[in-house]
Amino acid sequence: MSPGRLEAFSDGVFAIAITLLVLDIHVPDPSTTADLAQQLGSQWPSYVAYGVSFLTIGIIWINHHAMLRRIKAIDHEILILNLLLLLCVGLLPFTTALMAAYLKESEGETLAAAIYAGSFLLMSVVFAAMNWTILFRKDHLLAGPIDAATRRTIITRGVAGLLPYLAATILAVLSPYVSLAICGAVAAFYALPLASGDEETAAPA
Amino acid sequence: MSPGRLEAFSDGVFAIAITLLVLDIHVPDPSTTADLAQQLGSQWPSYVAYGVSFLTIGIIWINHHAMLRRIKAIDHEILILNLLLLLCVGLLPFTTALMAAYLKESEGETLAAAIYAGSFLLMSVVFAAMNWTILFRKDHLLAGPIDAATRRTIITRGVAGLLPYLAATILAVLSPYVSLAICGAVAAFYALPLASGDEETAAPA
Amino acid sequence: MSPGRLEAFSDGVFAIAITLLVLDIHVPDPSTTADLAQQLGSQWPSYVAYGVSFLTIGIIWINHHAMLRRIKAIDHEILILNLLLLLCVGLLPFTTALMAAYLKESEGETLAAAIYAGSFLLMSVVFAAMNWTILFRKDHLLAGPIDAATRRTIITRGVAGLLPYLAATILAVLSPYVSLAICGAVAAFYALPLASGDEETAAPA
Amino acid sequence: MSPGRLEAFSDGVFAIAITLLVLDIHVPDPSTTADLAQQLGSQWPSYVAYGVSFLTIGIIWINHHAMLRRIKAIDHEILILNLLLLLCVGLLPFTTALMAAYLKESEGETLAAAIYAGSFLLMSVVFAAMNWTILFRKDHLLAGPIDAATRRTIITRGVAGLLPYLAATILAVLSPYVSLAICGAVAAFYALPLASGDEETAAPA
Repeated sequence: MSPGRLEAFSDGVFAIAITLLVLDIHVPDPSTTADLAQQLGSQWPSYVAYGVSFLTIGIIWINHHAMLRRIKAIDHEILILNLLLLLCVGLLPFTTALMAAYLKESEGETLAAAIYAGSFLLMSVVFAAMNWTILFRKDHLLAGPIDAATRRTIITRGVAGLLPYLAATILAVLSPYVSLAICGAVAAFYALPLASGDEETAAPA
Repeated sequence: MSPGRLEAFSDGVFAIAITLLVLDIHVPDPSTTADLAQQLGSQWPSYVAYGVSFLTIGIIWINHHAMLRRIKAIDHEILILNLLLLLCVGLLPFTTALMAAYLKESEGETLAAAIYAGSFLLMSVVFAAMNWTILFRKDHLLAGPIDAATRRTIITRGVAGLLPYLAATILAVLSPYVSLAICGAVAAFYALPLASGDEETAAPA
Repeated sequence: MSPGRLEAFSDGVFAIAITLLVLDIHVPDPSTTADLAQQLGSQWPSYVAYGVSFLTIGIIWINHHAMLRRIKAIDHEILILNLLLLLCVGLLPFTTALMAAYLKESEGETLAAAIYAGSFLLMSVVFAAMNWTILFRKDHLLAGPIDAATRRTIITRGVAGLLPYLAATILAVLSPYVSLAICGAVAAFYALPLASGDEETAAPA
Repeated sequence: MSPGRLEAFSDGVFAIAITLLVLDIHVPDPSTTADLAQQLGSQWPSYVAYGVSFLTIGIIWINHHAMLRRIKAIDHEILILNLLLLLCVGLLPFTTALMAAYLKESEGETLAAAIYAGSFLLMSVVFAAMNWTILFRKDHLLAGPIDAATRRTIITRGVAGLLPYLAATILAVLSPYVSLAICGAVAAFYALPLASGDEETAAPA
């Protein structure tokens, strides 16, 4: 299988997961007596979670492309690692909806935030594992030679990118807002022009 | 990343958002005693909103293609602007459902219509910003030279395309029907053959 | 815009609409006391409607490919006609769910069946209009010369393909089962090998 | 129609079906008094079913690619067989949700498990039929010569891959957990590196 084919299939899953996020934003029931503005306002966690998850999936998509561009062929193990990565991405509409539903609650909010940040952490761990597999264990599949220093830099950056998500997962015990803020800051950091010196630095994982 | 790859991913999001619109059209519950024809008839705002949003997403998709055709390469900033554009497109199934649910209500209908037209306005603003970035700030990425007059014409048309959506957003205070009618008229205008002298004039944004 | 690009976007909409059909098949609530086998059995209209709609969308997808293969370029009018075709395809998950929900009811079943068959009819009419536009009004866009007899044959077959759907729409007044049976027969006819003498004969529209 | 086009459309359906699986995982209602951890824990069948179905669809996607890579052209019969395969794949979000909803129930769980494993069996049967059609009845469509021994090996492996699903379907009478465990074991077997000697051995069907 060519990397192009794998990429096209993966892009499909990324595109669908990113677009399914909107299903978590609910239209208030017109038959209730509550004011629409107030009802829409009260579900702001849904909008924030939508934005953060949308940007995060978008950025992982960009990085996924950068990762696959380095290789000229795919083997079974890479296929399966990629499938596990997509499995994590596919879960994000659920964890995003969970975060949005519980952010303002007084019970369950810690767990929901930990699961939300944890799902990004898991995705990033699988991404880093896939990157490491390609760069260090499957270097015969590389499209061109990559020197050892560059490989180490890529992996180091990927692992460094895990740390905010690890923090966000743990700090859910303080407050779910802390977790959400960290995840949002990561997305904003990679989206802002200042992080875009080169493609690699734009990788959260 | 090649424009082709970005386009393929974006097309996926456009295609999914446009197809998810149908989820806003509900099948009346057979266990109610109400007449089906009357029930289906009473949810005509859903059909109108479906049609208007479908055509609008379709036209922005056509314009998106025209925009990307002008460039030969993509950088980080364009990627992120494109992601923001897709984020707006991804919201349309929600704002469309909101408009459909509140159009005939006596409360909340103004806000719903303003959000509906406002989501098209936002999408168009991001589209115009992306076009402007490509034409004026990233002209080294252009596939071929575009003279200054043509650039200005493209941007002017894009900004002119914002005005109906701005009007539709503001005029929601008069009536939600006015907003919907303007949005529908924009879609019809760009869809009708008379607007198709050249590709560029077919751009709402 | 190249036909390939239009085709890729259209394929996305076809693929999504065909896959969304499954959302109409509901999992019975485990908390009810009713027997699962009986509950699943009682929703057989959903399975039949799923199968008929799935095959019909699949066949229109095949025909859509055959249609676009004949042209070398796309203009605005073809883009818009294609968008209208996709708009009809996008409605099918709704009309399919409507048919499934009302097939066994004693009220509303005629209207639901007429809408179901009517949505196939509408799709086929737009398809025929698009084919006619390409073959007779836009022949400068054809990839190669097609003689007049062949053009007439293609259009005649397309129009002939409308008649069963027209019958199915009208005969809903007899029984919704008649409508569904006709739509199913059309799908089966085009799916069966005997209809596959050449690609064109496999076109319901 | 080129195999590439068929593949792209099929990939779309695979990608959508695999991503729709997440819609079966529900966010517990925050307004209930139950503990979130306990509520999330109690729906573990959804997570297991998600994982098993995700991997299974992913593996059938890999195999589908291997199958289409062997042919250089497509005819009507292959198109229709492929459509039937996609029809089965499209059903998996439903059968997965059914399995998840009934696994822990004391009534209906046998039927739900039989349907779940049965849907994988059906998909595998159609896959094997399609493979057999290509290798034995349509060998003029093959991209290159495949000797008889290799053909028999491919088919034998495909049929052997059916047996676990057949067992899982039948053994639902013992316990739904047995069915789920077998389906999960098949997915794990093909995902694990040890099964990856060559592409063909990685085919469950």
